[in-house]
Amino acid sequence: MSAIENRLSDLGITLPEPPRPVASYLPAVQSGHLLMVSGQIPFEDGVLVANGPVPSKVSIDGATAAARRCAINGLAVAKAALDGDLGRIRRVVRLGVFVQCDPGFDAQPSVANGASDFMVAVFGDAGRHVRAAVGVNALPLDATVEVEFIFEVA
Amino acid sequence: MSAIENRLSDLGITLPEPPRPVASYLPAVQSGHLLMVSGQIPFEDGVLVANGPVPSKVSIDGATAAARRCAINGLAVAKAALDGDLGRIRRVVRLGVFVQCDPGFDAQPSVANGASDFMVAVFGDAGRHVRAAVGVNALPLDATVEVEFIFEVA
Amino acid sequence: MSAIENRLSDLGITLPEPPRPVASYLPAVQSGHLLMVSGQIPFEDGVLVANGPVPSKVSIDGATAAARRCAINGLAVAKAALDGDLGRIRRVVRLGVFVQCDPGFDAQPSVANGASDFMVAVFGDAGRHVRAAVGVNALPLDATVEVEFIFEVA
Repeated sequence: MSAIENRLSDLGITLPEPPRPVASYLPAVQSGHLLMVSGQIPFEDGVLVANGPVPSKVSIDGATAAARRCAINGLAVAKAALDGDLGRIRRVVRLGVFVQCDPGFDAQPSVANGASDFMVAVFGDAGRHVRAAVGVNALPLDATVEVEFIFEVA
Repeated sequence: MSAIENRLSDLGITLPEPPRPVASYLPAVQSGHLLMVSGQIPFEDGVLVANGPVPSKVSIDGATAAARRCAINGLAVAKAALDGDLGRIRRVVRLGVFVQCDPGFDAQPSVANGASDFMVAVFGDAGRHVRAAVGVNALPLDATVEVEFIFEVA
Repeated sequence: MSAIENRLSDLGITLPEPPRPVASYLPAVQSGHLLMVSGQIPFEDGVLVANGPVPSKVSIDGATAAARRCAINGLAVAKAALDGDLGRIRRVVRLGVFVQCDPGFDAQPSVANGASDFMVAVFGDAGRHVRAAVGVNALPLDATVEVEFIFEVA
């Protein structure tokens, strides 16, 4: 078991079966050393853990937990794309975080930290990444958060 | 004529003159094996095929057709950047799809399929890609859809 | 002093201390020859130069100046990541521009030119890039504009 698998185990996290794309695209594509992962929404056991905008329908805490769930799902997708070997991930390069919110909501960074902090918890310094976090008025399936990923892989 | 040109011909598609950027940037930039294409809006013969948000002003079907148009324009841009040789495209890597919509609209994946399905129709398995599809409250020139692209090229 | 530093001096621009990320992520990550810079908001001397949506709270001119400020900050981040040597930047590859705006606002390209024109003023042809410019209903700290960057570096 790789160091990363041990770390996930220490964190009490079991990666799910990677969520299937909800449309005609791929969960992950590798080009050179970059592994790109499609935008993930916060499915857990087949149900979204958060729907609707922050803060009128979902609290910042709820949205932050949803962002973390997106990150767990993104890592599950990456693992599947790497034939199960998370040890091939050299580092997390970039997260793109879209937060469904009401106009004027300004705490997207707090919400996005749910995903960012997860990557650092799992990968340590190699989990640190660049990020764009923005608000949007609508997301697929009314999800509260969508996160896309770029990993550098061996 | 390349296999891809034949496929476009079979599909009855004539790539347009690539739309000119509406501002001070380039239609495409290659770095290493990645060819990045600027966000395309659904111009056809100089006119946008869809304006305004989904669903209050534009139907899902109309927006899906607009997303397909963006993909046609993106491929036209790529062709020009590759000196006319679509055979240099190894695969489609990523689409970024922005759908202008009303709050709470949740069918961005259906709309984005207009672009994704086009790429698969043209390139087969090499047309499959990762994707982020999100809703936004406004787009350039009031376009209904904007799509940006990353291709892997030889 | 590099040619680029001279050019900045000619333009009367002093790069600031790079703004610190407002959350748990990195300002910049290099993978291969790509240097990615996190989404920048228009801080100047620790204060945002523009808050709220275009055009109800901020004019197009104000937002355009804010986009330019984001670009200055992005370049400051890149310089720090390159150990102070802007001469290592081969070209600007991509800008991702998010404009906080009211529904139906359609001049995102004009606003984004504040960032794009800055890059061309500094780098000349090597400053030209691909771009996605979109409207959103909310941004971190209520900033009017957020811009992320990809540079190609030696």
